[in-house]
Amino acid sequence: MAARATTAAGGGFGSYLFGMSDKIARQATEAKDANNIKDPHLGWMIGFLFLVSFIGLLALVPLRKIMIVDYKLTYPSGTATAYLINGFHTPEGAKLAKKQVKTLGKYFVFSFFWGFFQWFYTAGDDCGFKNFPTLGLEAYKHRFFFDFSPTYVGVGMICPYIVNVSVLLGGILSWGVMWPLIAKKKGSWYPADEGDSSLHGLQAYRVFISIALILGDGLYNFIKVLIRTIAGFITMVQQNSKSMLPVSNNGSSMSTAEAVSFDEERRTEVFLKDQIPKSVAYGGYVAVAAISIGTLPQIFPQLKWYYILVAYVVAPVLAFCNAYGSGLTDWSLASTYGKLAIFVFGAWAGLAHGGVLVGLAACGVMMSIVSTASDLMQDFKTGYLTLASPRSMFISQVIGTGMGCVITPCVFWLFYKAFGDIGESGTEYPAPYAIVYRNMAILGVDGFGSLPKNCLTLCYIFFAVAIAINLVRDLAPHRVSRFIPLPMAMAIPFYIGSYFAIDMFLGSAILFVWARLNKAKADAFGPAVASGLICGDGIWTLPQSILALAKVNPPICMKFLSRATNAKVDSFLGLS
Amino acid sequence: MAARATTAAGGGFGSYLFGMSDKIARQATEAKDANNIKDPHLGWMIGFLFLVSFIGLLALVPLRKIMIVDYKLTYPSGTATAYLINGFHTPEGAKLAKKQVKTLGKYFVFSFFWGFFQWFYTAGDDCGFKNFPTLGLEAYKHRFFFDFSPTYVGVGMICPYIVNVSVLLGGILSWGVMWPLIAKKKGSWYPADEGDSSLHGLQAYRVFISIALILGDGLYNFIKVLIRTIAGFITMVQQNSKSMLPVSNNGSSMSTAEAVSFDEERRTEVFLKDQIPKSVAYGGYVAVAAISIGTLPQIFPQLKWYYILVAYVVAPVLAFCNAYGSGLTDWSLASTYGKLAIFVFGAWAGLAHGGVLVGLAACGVMMSIVSTASDLMQDFKTGYLTLASPRSMFISQVIGTGMGCVITPCVFWLFYKAFGDIGESGTEYPAPYAIVYRNMAILGVDGFGSLPKNCLTLCYIFFAVAIAINLVRDLAPHRVSRFIPLPMAMAIPFYIGSYFAIDMFLGSAILFVWARLNKAKADAFGPAVASGLICGDGIWTLPQSILALAKVNPPICMKFLSRATNAKVDSFLGLS
Repeated sequence: MAARATTAAGGGFGSYLFGMSDKIARQATEAKDANNIKDPHLGWMIGFLFLVSFIGLLALVPLRKIMIVDYKLTYPSGTATAYLINGFHTPEGAKLAKKQVKTLGKYFVFSFFWGFFQWFYTAGDDCGFKNFPTLGLEAYKHRFFFDFSPTYVGVGMICPYIVNVSVLLGGILSWGVMWPLIAKKKGSWYPADEGDSSLHGLQAYRVFISIALILGDGLYNFIKVLIRTIAGFITMVQQNSKSMLPVSNNGSSMSTAEAVSFDEERRTEVFLKDQIPKSVAYGGYVAVAAISIGTLPQIFPQLKWYYILVAYVVAPVLAFCNAYGSGLTDWSLASTYGKLAIFVFGAWAGLAHGGVLVGLAACGVMMSIVSTASDLMQDFKTGYLTLASPRSMFISQVIGTGMGCVITPCVFWLFYKAFGDIGESGTEYPAPYAIVYRNMAILGVDGFGSLPKNCLTLCYIFFAVAIAINLVRDLAPHRVSRFIPLPMAMAIPFYIGSYFAIDMFLGSAILFVWARLNKAKADAFGPAVASGLICGDGIWTLPQSILALAKVNPPICMKFLSRATNAKVDSFLGLS
Repeated sequence: MAARATTAAGGGFGSYLFGMSDKIARQATEAKDANNIKDPHLGWMIGFLFLVSFIGLLALVPLRKIMIVDYKLTYPSGTATAYLINGFHTPEGAKLAKKQVKTLGKYFVFSFFWGFFQWFYTAGDDCGFKNFPTLGLEAYKHRFFFDFSPTYVGVGMICPYIVNVSVLLGGILSWGVMWPLIAKKKGSWYPADEGDSSLHGLQAYRVFISIALILGDGLYNFIKVLIRTIAGFITMVQQNSKSMLPVSNNGSSMSTAEAVSFDEERRTEVFLKDQIPKSVAYGGYVAVAAISIGTLPQIFPQLKWYYILVAYVVAPVLAFCNAYGSGLTDWSLASTYGKLAIFVFGAWAGLAHGGVLVGLAACGVMMSIVSTASDLMQDFKTGYLTLASPRSMFISQVIGTGMGCVITPCVFWLFYKAFGDIGESGTEYPAPYAIVYRNMAILGVDGFGSLPKNCLTLCYIFFAVAIAINLVRDLAPHRVSRFIPLPMAMAIPFYIGSYFAIDMFLGSAILFVWARLNKAKADAFGPAVASGLICGDGIWTLPQSILALAKVNPPICMKFLSRATNAKVDSFLGLS
């Protein structure tokens, strides 16, 4: 868990934190005034991270029972980790459990070495299995391909079928239908000279329609929970009951009264026994928010106290959305929420008042809260399944986050001082994301007016559609509603592309066929296979990053060329 | 079977037959005189094919019991085909057999669609899975890689472990040790300016050392069989026995007296019951040889009758070698024997007496005999396992060959007349092999003196080593000899490279592990899996060639570049 928190915090150094620096500003087009620049320094970076990292831990703690016990969200990574951990504690003599562990181990090893094997063929961009045009080059251009990722095949095996189908539907709707149609409006809806990844062009539709769909779904669910909580609270006060757990009492009324297995009951019991007091969560959140409002403007004078207040009021809603989404599909869209923050706060402040810096700082606050919250929820899911005490998990998470807030800036500072050219384009250590983030902030200060034509209209439509679909899901009888896709799951490929949807679909197809052939076996070993695939791939990233740090580059590029391009390349290689 | 005979005969049109033509001669460096040229014509081609195709059918018929019943050679393709055929005749209610058929079917379908999937990525040379540098680029350069061929994985599962180990050993010895060492002598042992595939350079060592090893092993076994046959014959005459089957009687004394299963006994019985009379075989061989000696010089005046006589005397020995080798590893080296014939007969005749044409014609005779003989033996193996009557198989083979001898030249003639530019370089229908064969023949007329330095010496050494290893294998006790590799199996990767050795090794490794985990299951289903893999891949070649004929080209090239080359290509593609 500590490792996770570290990564989440560490991500900022490549993007928003470094994007504030003079070095990156000089590589951007405008906003090079001192008001929009803040060079990195060890002191303020540690302080900033402390202020923004802990708030994420507190934001969603009160809602964890709803997410995990009532909504029964999958959190595929968390579930996989739990299977792995449970594997180490198999009771002796439990034959089935032993077999499951063996299966998990087998797929773990396979997935790990598959990752290792893939690595050799990734010299250069667009190389390797991650870019295998499995469905042809035309489909690949629209990001429809199977990318041989064991993680998402595993995720697909763990997620319910409706999630996988929703993701795939979303992919087909967006990359198969909508984006090609919008691309035809090039030159009319948006300037023809904008690149594919420019927020002035097609990318804007992708990012903001995706956000609209997610916000619609997330807000609907957030408000639903809120109303039920308040209703429950009122009931409780009326009944003068002494229950310590209002949310859970009312939450449980949400889940259908199904027969619960012994395991489930025991898990829920342990999960709820060792409560983190609500007072700690709410009090802590208010306290950290207050301190942030007081101190963050000291670090960034441009960042007014009311920006921070608004951010901390909105943050739990976004954190809920992200935790809900990653519970469904395992995909945390923290960077998307960060982009939203850049845009909104940058526009609010305006260029003259250091809007670029405000946007980047707000992005840091939002990304940190949102990603920490979804990571924490994954960990709670693991804890729920492994019967770990949520309180001790929370405390260890706090310690881990604290360590991360000190260690990561120090490592960055060391590199920054040791290699003078860090962040310069064309050097060993370029910072492409820092430039992208700064450019987004520059775009943001121009406000929503800078979005391409009809983008905002489409956003409104999709926001409404997300709410409408949710309403229908809730009002329709179960036999109908279970076939209605989830807007949150549909939104994720809108931005990312369908390749991971195809991985997930394959995973669920495998499970489906397996269950048809042998239901008992599929039920017993499916999660073990999935967990092995997810964890093996996940662990491989560790040696992979060590290799990258040691500058061991993969030797071969597996490239995919069309027949025509290949002929050109062959003649070029023959000549050179 | 008819299809096979057709393919074998059809192969000649791309190589030796067309290599005689004026069109190809104009593209070669020398020997462009009329004496060394013979343009294709329907009449003589059909005649030629009739003369050389049937002799192959007769050459090895008398030895088939030794190959199949006594030596128990595997003939992996033949075995796989037999499994497939037996699958269609599974007795109702035989549960195990049904399961085996299901397994076979599953792997058949997998293998077929794997072939289909691979096809999409083969636009251009060196593209696709067949050129996947699975063990790195350096190893790939020395032809060590896994080429994802289900056929050879299946072959590896059917072949005995010692064959697979021998093949891999041969590959390591040749491509891992010998060729790199010889390559260091570039400029001293052979001219530095010769290309990798020139018979004046490294390729000469590969081809001729491989032949030496094969001839050593083949001759040893041929003579061994001959001595035993004669000894048995003498014994028979002395005992005044009336046995009709001298060879088989004595042959059976060669195989160790193991307990034979009911299936085996029944198979041997059927196989031996329906004899092809020896008189037909020997008489037929002598008759066809006599006709050939009489008529071939009519077609090629340069081809003197004594060349043909010598060829037909030597042919059975080479046919035995090839049938023996393909029985072990499934790899027919007919073209290698063809090259030997080009060399020997070309040198014998000399340039002035039309040596090039003599070499090419002799190549045709030899290739035809040698490949038909090994194909026939594969079919006999299939017949043996499926309880088919060898006599009816032989007759159908005769009919098939006869049809092939008429149909193939007609198809070629049609193309030749319809497309005037056939065989010209740079056109739709180039004939690269025809040029290669003609160049080899030109090289051959210069005699063994044209071989690079020490090549002949090394050939002698390996010839002797092959005989020595065989002697040790026969004289050492079984517990030692079973670990001694087979020179014939070792020789095949000498020329071809180790990639198929790695496929085979993988197949045998899978079987080994499987047998360790579950011996009964591996024994029951191993051959079914292997047969499915081999047959599925084999059947895929049919739609593949239809696609090629219809000029449907694969759309994508999966290319493998080193990091440095990839960087160059990326910048080239960025510029263009």
